[in-house]
Amino acid sequence: MRKVGIIGVGQSVFGVRNDVTIQELAWEAVKEALEDAGLTQKDIEISIVGSAGTRTYELYPAVPVNEYSGFSEKGPLRVEAACATGSAALAVAYNMVASGFVDIALAIGVEKMNEVDTATSLAVGGRGGGNYLWEYHFYGTTFPPAYYALYATAHMAKFGTTEEQLALVRVKNQKYAARNPKAQFQFEVTVEDVLKSRPITWPLKLYDCSAITDGAAAAIVASEDAIRKLHIDTPVWIEAIGYASDTSNITRREDYVSLKATKIAAQMAYKKAGIEPKDVEVAEVHDCFTIAEIMAYEDLGFVEKGRGGGKFIEEGQSDIGGKVAVNLSGGLLGKGHPLGGLRAWR
Amino acid sequence: MRKVGIIGVGQSVFGVRNDVTIQELAWEAVKEALEDAGLTQKDIEISIVGSAGTRTYELYPAVPVNEYSGFSEKGPLRVEAACATGSAALAVAYNMVASGFVDIALAIGVEKMNEVDTATSLAVGGRGGGNYLWEYHFYGTTFPPAYYALYATAHMAKFGTTEEQLALVRVKNQKYAARNPKAQFQFEVTVEDVLKSRPITWPLKLYDCSAITDGAAAAIVASEDAIRKLHIDTPVWIEAIGYASDTSNITRREDYVSLKATKIAAQMAYKKAGIEPKDVEVAEVHDCFTIAEIMAYEDLGFVEKGRGGGKFIEEGQSDIGGKVAVNLSGGLLGKGHPLGGLRAWR
Repeated sequence: MRKVGIIGVGQSVFGVRNDVTIQELAWEAVKEALEDAGLTQKDIEISIVGSAGTRTYELYPAVPVNEYSGFSEKGPLRVEAACATGSAALAVAYNMVASGFVDIALAIGVEKMNEVDTATSLAVGGRGGGNYLWEYHFYGTTFPPAYYALYATAHMAKFGTTEEQLALVRVKNQKYAARNPKAQFQFEVTVEDVLKSRPITWPLKLYDCSAITDGAAAAIVASEDAIRKLHIDTPVWIEAIGYASDTSNITRREDYVSLKATKIAAQMAYKKAGIEPKDVEVAEVHDCFTIAEIMAYEDLGFVEKGRGGGKFIEEGQSDIGGKVAVNLSGGLLGKGHPLGGLRAWR
Repeated sequence: MRKVGIIGVGQSVFGVRNDVTIQELAWEAVKEALEDAGLTQKDIEISIVGSAGTRTYELYPAVPVNEYSGFSEKGPLRVEAACATGSAALAVAYNMVASGFVDIALAIGVEKMNEVDTATSLAVGGRGGGNYLWEYHFYGTTFPPAYYALYATAHMAKFGTTEEQLALVRVKNQKYAARNPKAQFQFEVTVEDVLKSRPITWPLKLYDCSAITDGAAAAIVASEDAIRKLHIDTPVWIEAIGYASDTSNITRREDYVSLKATKIAAQMAYKKAGIEPKDVEVAEVHDCFTIAEIMAYEDLGFVEKGRGGGKFIEEGQSDIGGKVAVNLSGGLLGKGHPLGGLRAWR
């Protein structure tokens, strides 16, 4: 594979962004990324737009996004992988450079989630995420109760993880969100704040859950040759990408205390990069709910299965000064969760 | 770039497929492609699902499609590029093999268009293709009147192209659709049939337009090494891919007698492959309307601009025995037009 590096990144302010259209939101991130790389639109050969797109007015969001940002000839190629959409866009841009198809590619992740409300998004033609026929229509599953509260209760039952330990994830992530001028929630919280927040589905309270967020991020990737020609001395080389999923049918999962997809993808990436979990110093992981971050510690191999709660979180092992600093951006919990907007490069 | 070849293809029956879910429809194509290549699911490293997805019940169509076909761990990675969605999925699969990320990838194009009707699809949150704010909402543009009737009248005014010449495109494509057991419309038509069909937007009649179609196609691509190891002697090598678009704002286009996107993408592909338009013997082009195929003859360089109607079509130069045989599958007009379902490999 050709070596590929990230040479510019940008990001919009996250939050309820009814002040902008999806293309204006994306441009906030694209403009920053271009400036960061010292490039203009003409340098970009293809624009990959990650957008789950289920709650925006635009039927084909890559089209207005590319048009407005000045890439109307350089796409459209929209990528969607549900909550991994941003990472998927980066993976496609990476492969298009690694293959030699282009030398410089742009990956945009953008989501407007406050245009079409949840009820409408789900009700239209009976649409649901997961699998419409079996999960949404027959069983009425939605994310908090059917997925993450289930995982949380299983983790508590099997390993003794407590509600206080779940809360500590939010406390840590808010500490950093409070210092991030682009975060949706720029304030700190205490364990007590989390425990007292409105119940959603036991054991999850409001502060155990991420929010509905509008936001965008962008990354420019380039080949080693292009980076040399541009005289860029400090690219962030992409050493490895792992890509995996698991059954979407919740009833068929092997267990309810881990996400197999994370384990497979992490092993792929570790193997390609030639490193072990203990070598990782900083990680941004999927903390859509507090329990998700605890499972990620385990599934990524930072701590053994079942120990992601307990002393690991209590001692701050996932904070600066611990074994691995996780979600220093504020994470999905503190910074906001625009589905396709940010996974890999928030 | 690593050499990449297509080693298996498959396709569903096209039409109004209310008898199947989107995952069952995709499986018809995937099953054929696996059998064609002599592979099983375990041989596939990643599954790329092309689906515009705007008229199906499934919010994230790649998820149930992968689940049902046995690729629940190998994705999801959905690609959307409006009416070029199928080709875009193939382009991503191609790049993931060319880069060395994987050795064997599957590209699926699938579209269920008869689950959510046009009115609902467009009305939900005011959604429209193109650009919601300027085109759909303010001007009410939809495809037949605002785009292709405009192009047809301009072509007629500037080059003297006639309604009869437009009709000849449908006549040719139906000749082949009538012989294609998977086509939506398996019958032949005459010029008179086309001219007599119901007016849609002058000069386009019903038979100048493609239909609302459910359908799926699949292609398995592999690296040269993998092809050698599999002892496959007859892959279809992908010599080059061009990828481009144009402004989505119809008011900003340079002219209304050509599609700039086609010209740019074709030049990219010709240059990479080291061939000229006259070297092309067979082509599948985007005939969503009869005028689209005539413009494609010109924009792809098979005949000079303005001459795609006239003698070129009258003499059968785009038919078997002519300069280049176009849309022998029956095309979008005869075979059907499931947005993401088929572009590159119908």
